[in-house]
Amino acid sequence: MKKVIIDTDTAGDDTIAILTALHFFDVEGIMITGGNVQFEQQVENALYTVEVAGKSGKVPVYKGHQGPFLQLGQSQHRTVEDVHGSDGMGGANFQKTIQRPETIHAVDFLIEAVHANPGEITLLAIAPLTNIAMAIKKDPTIISKIGDLYIMGGTNNHLGNITPAAEYNFYVDPEAARIVLNSGIPITMVGWEMCTKYSIMTEEDHEDIEMLQTKGSDFFVAVNKVVKHFNQKVHKLDGTTHPDTLLMAVAANESIMTRCGNYYVDVETKGEFTRGYSVVDINNRLGEKKNVRVCEEVDRDAFKKILLDVLKDIK
Amino acid sequence: MKKVIIDTDTAGDDTIAILTALHFFDVEGIMITGGNVQFEQQVENALYTVEVAGKSGKVPVYKGHQGPFLQLGQSQHRTVEDVHGSDGMGGANFQKTIQRPETIHAVDFLIEAVHANPGEITLLAIAPLTNIAMAIKKDPTIISKIGDLYIMGGTNNHLGNITPAAEYNFYVDPEAARIVLNSGIPITMVGWEMCTKYSIMTEEDHEDIEMLQTKGSDFFVAVNKVVKHFNQKVHKLDGTTHPDTLLMAVAANESIMTRCGNYYVDVETKGEFTRGYSVVDINNRLGEKKNVRVCEEVDRDAFKKILLDVLKDIK
Amino acid sequence: MKKVIIDTDTAGDDTIAILTALHFFDVEGIMITGGNVQFEQQVENALYTVEVAGKSGKVPVYKGHQGPFLQLGQSQHRTVEDVHGSDGMGGANFQKTIQRPETIHAVDFLIEAVHANPGEITLLAIAPLTNIAMAIKKDPTIISKIGDLYIMGGTNNHLGNITPAAEYNFYVDPEAARIVLNSGIPITMVGWEMCTKYSIMTEEDHEDIEMLQTKGSDFFVAVNKVVKHFNQKVHKLDGTTHPDTLLMAVAANESIMTRCGNYYVDVETKGEFTRGYSVVDINNRLGEKKNVRVCEEVDRDAFKKILLDVLKDIK
Amino acid sequence: MKKVIIDTDTAGDDTIAILTALHFFDVEGIMITGGNVQFEQQVENALYTVEVAGKSGKVPVYKGHQGPFLQLGQSQHRTVEDVHGSDGMGGANFQKTIQRPETIHAVDFLIEAVHANPGEITLLAIAPLTNIAMAIKKDPTIISKIGDLYIMGGTNNHLGNITPAAEYNFYVDPEAARIVLNSGIPITMVGWEMCTKYSIMTEEDHEDIEMLQTKGSDFFVAVNKVVKHFNQKVHKLDGTTHPDTLLMAVAANESIMTRCGNYYVDVETKGEFTRGYSVVDINNRLGEKKNVRVCEEVDRDAFKKILLDVLKDIK
Ligand SMILES: [Ca+2]
Ligand SMILES: [Ca+2]
Ligand SMILES: [Ca+2]
Ligand SMILES: [Ca+2]
Repeated sequence: MKKVIIDTDTAGDDTIAILTALHFFDVEGIMITGGNVQFEQQVENALYTVEVAGKSGKVPVYKGHQGPFLQLGQSQHRTVEDVHGSDGMGGANFQKTIQRPETIHAVDFLIEAVHANPGEITLLAIAPLTNIAMAIKKDPTIISKIGDLYIMGGTNNHLGNITPAAEYNFYVDPEAARIVLNSGIPITMVGWEMCTKYSIMTEEDHEDIEMLQTKGSDFFVAVNKVVKHFNQKVHKLDGTTHPDTLLMAVAANESIMTRCGNYYVDVETKGEFTRGYSVVDINNRLGEKKNVRVCEEVDRDAFKKILLDVLKDIK
Repeated sequence: MKKVIIDTDTAGDDTIAILTALHFFDVEGIMITGGNVQFEQQVENALYTVEVAGKSGKVPVYKGHQGPFLQLGQSQHRTVEDVHGSDGMGGANFQKTIQRPETIHAVDFLIEAVHANPGEITLLAIAPLTNIAMAIKKDPTIISKIGDLYIMGGTNNHLGNITPAAEYNFYVDPEAARIVLNSGIPITMVGWEMCTKYSIMTEEDHEDIEMLQTKGSDFFVAVNKVVKHFNQKVHKLDGTTHPDTLLMAVAANESIMTRCGNYYVDVETKGEFTRGYSVVDINNRLGEKKNVRVCEEVDRDAFKKILLDVLKDIK
Repeated sequence: MKKVIIDTDTAGDDTIAILTALHFFDVEGIMITGGNVQFEQQVENALYTVEVAGKSGKVPVYKGHQGPFLQLGQSQHRTVEDVHGSDGMGGANFQKTIQRPETIHAVDFLIEAVHANPGEITLLAIAPLTNIAMAIKKDPTIISKIGDLYIMGGTNNHLGNITPAAEYNFYVDPEAARIVLNSGIPITMVGWEMCTKYSIMTEEDHEDIEMLQTKGSDFFVAVNKVVKHFNQKVHKLDGTTHPDTLLMAVAANESIMTRCGNYYVDVETKGEFTRGYSVVDINNRLGEKKNVRVCEEVDRDAFKKILLDVLKDIK
Repeated sequence: MKKVIIDTDTAGDDTIAILTALHFFDVEGIMITGGNVQFEQQVENALYTVEVAGKSGKVPVYKGHQGPFLQLGQSQHRTVEDVHGSDGMGGANFQKTIQRPETIHAVDFLIEAVHANPGEITLLAIAPLTNIAMAIKKDPTIISKIGDLYIMGGTNNHLGNITPAAEYNFYVDPEAARIVLNSGIPITMVGWEMCTKYSIMTEEDHEDIEMLQTKGSDFFVAVNKVVKHFNQKVHKLDGTTHPDTLLMAVAANESIMTRCGNYYVDVETKGEFTRGYSVVDINNRLGEKKNVRVCEEVDRDAFKKILLDVLKDIK
């Protein structure tokens, strides 16, 4: 089994993504970064998800950076309780777990793990890229020892979700995203438009999931309560969106990615309307070196099958 | 016949667009603005196109601003002879016409024409928006007297052409684009992705056009020589692109625009990668007032028919 | 007598500056640009000032651009009634004059006047540079025919007045300032810090002025009522400030400028805190070509004498 | 003796500053950050300076961040060997010391030291603020436990040194500077203009120093060889500049700071000409909370006396 480390702002779909990763990979640790909802709530959500997967005490959870690099003083980055519910879990308010987070900082965990397993660790990033940027700034020698990095983030010349121009993960910490994308680590990016095109679970899909009647499917139903309504109202999407789970599915089974391309990708940090915008230079108009493999098409049915397999297996 | 004024940086497809406008409208004047190729060459191209249409001496051509507002000192904006040939006419190097440009400045012509025909003038903009921005800055009272403004420019959450983030017309003078989009004039925008989706004339289409064997079809073949090669090499597009003609066709016959939406649209002027990027806020994430009707789908066959009708008619 | 054209946002010190220019120069015309207070009020203030100078009907006043280039839609640039009083004249609310503004636009007047007097016109700019930028954009051939341009604007590596980083005239229209500074016109710049160092009229100076007991001194007292209080409260300055009059005095008698230097000067348009900041590259760290003569020291007593001579002469 | 931690990009005046700190304070550690010259050379320079002070093995040196946060990929920030010589020590090429740097990262050392001595540590920052920003991002709970922070950096509405608008330390890592200035730590800032006004050692001063004939004065002469020439050529300054030593002297003896003020200070990260510019809002035009005590005047003779005392004492 491939060794992976997850970086997550655990809320909503992050939980299903974690379940998916736990299904397919040897998860060395889960790092929490500031993002979707209040930081400590995210930590609890990750711990609870590990428990749901029946791996309590076996997969450590590390607290990382609570907000983006350029968050100043008492300011707070934009959280999205409107998308995921006040607890980030569709308002389910699950119980606190017995497993507690580790004391070592996520960034130090990552640096140590990579040095201990040179070339073997795959990083699965489903949150703002603060922790990963900080780790490679603190110890740039890990760059050449990270096997692969899969990123859910940005858009490939499509509408954003948090602003018209930007996807949430890149928007929250665009400086971190720039650092990671320009680092030289082999990167696969799954943008927001992959999610809206290939990851949506419709009413009918939800019925299929509910019929599984497993602990996994019950959990799925609970955490997706708020986002369904949000998607209809804001994004005009009919169903729930699963960007983070899609990222995990692609990492677990690349054959579901039916088309991809290597492009120069970078992130705008300075614009008035475009902070967090991801430049994906498909026709190489800028003449820069290609640095990211961008997912361009997914086998939607294969993705659904993976999701159902994962949920069915959690009893 | 509807009274229109054309604003153009005449090169390549601008010529066919002018022919189209001359076919459908009462063209009060043609304004030249800095853009595609050297300014004086653009003036000649417009004059020659009027002659091709058999209207020599009947449609005045006005020289406007030779470059964008923020062009400093001796600097020159980015022209695109690589797209359209050194003369902007596929290298055809047509003869100079007898008709000469008017002496009044394009901006003053526009202001006078609008005041003389309040509510009756439709503006057809197929170039950087410098002239129009300058006119409404010089005399804001024309704003409420302009009937309609059709703009070929920007993209609707798609890849740009001159940079990954920006379409050429908005890129050359983003400050002008902001001024025009925020002016309050009723605007219809046809973005670059409408052009790549619905205006491409393939090898087969070109054969259909050549078979017309009119002066119009001969002219079409000549001016499209360079762009066909450029599109294949740079944009991976198989055929010639007709953004400006598409704009004219939509203005002439709105029924070919099979889908459109009203959105808040603005332009980035400050980014590092995104200068000229057009924000089209489809889900109204920014909460701003809708200011532009954005063309989202075109009947491609109807467009082709219009194009052929225009070319057939020029004998 | 030297032929000059004044560009002014007439309020407060602009009036005394106009009186000074009328004293020393053959004023071909006064152009009004958007700035200090409501535009139409500025027009009236300029007309009234011409009347005070006893030149009613002899010096035409031209209405120009009412606001900066990048002022969008219904937005309004920042006016400063707090500095100059609601009417820009210390609250004096003077009567309307018989002389009315001309109908030709200021920009067109400027272009015509320069062409009619090649090399002979000195431009005296004591306002945001919108009109002058617009004129050289509309007709760049005037650039080589403008004799000299004196600008009150910017700072030479000192504190600004409207923001910590920026002086008001450059702040209101930084794009225009960039265009003018980079145009190639021979420029002399008198920055805000020259004003705070050498133009302040203290209580004692005001007594000297009042003792003149002329129409000029009465007018001076009236228009300076509000600014005195504002300076104490905001700028911690003890007295009235006369940036525009200082500019006129320097233009009229260069010998009062006891030190100056030629530097590369440009204007920031993009910063978060620094919009309108003037870069004065004293040690040529940027390696750019010198484009502006910057006033660095003034004979304060000589300036005061000039001011009193002007006011004494207006009976 | 007050406990201090130094953060330095050791080259040129950093060394004399370190000697000064070692003279007056209980130095808990020296942190190296990317700045003046090649990182490893800076580490050696700091170690050598500790040896010169006769404290070899007694003051640990910690390696921190080798470059600014937003340094991307293989890019390198702007170093200034032209100011300080290729080795940053006036070309002296001193021998390698027996003492070696510690293995713990500077950021972790700082966090531990502050927690171990709550409220007692004074931070003396004479380099880009990368390390300190990174420490407070990694563990924001140290903010309330740092006693004081003295920063050599920025300018107070005066000409910069690396660009016309910016001082070197803020210019190299403006994002870090923003984070630190907005952190809530009690800060005293000594800007570049304090250095050019009050810290310059002239030919005559150098003679006074040479006459000390101590190991300290010999060292001073050696490391200042290159900067003297640079200052004359670039900054038109007659003598050597001692910004970092001035910072230490002010921290050691506040009475030499004869004037200071509390202001809102922030840093521009986005401008075209103004990256790294420090906004010092003397008249509170922005209405923001005051966050920095800014040094505005120094007793130059007292500073010289301190410097000579330090150098005399190193035998
Ligand atoms: Ca996530
Ligand atoms: Ca065009
Ligand atoms: Ca003025
Ligand atoms: Ca230093």
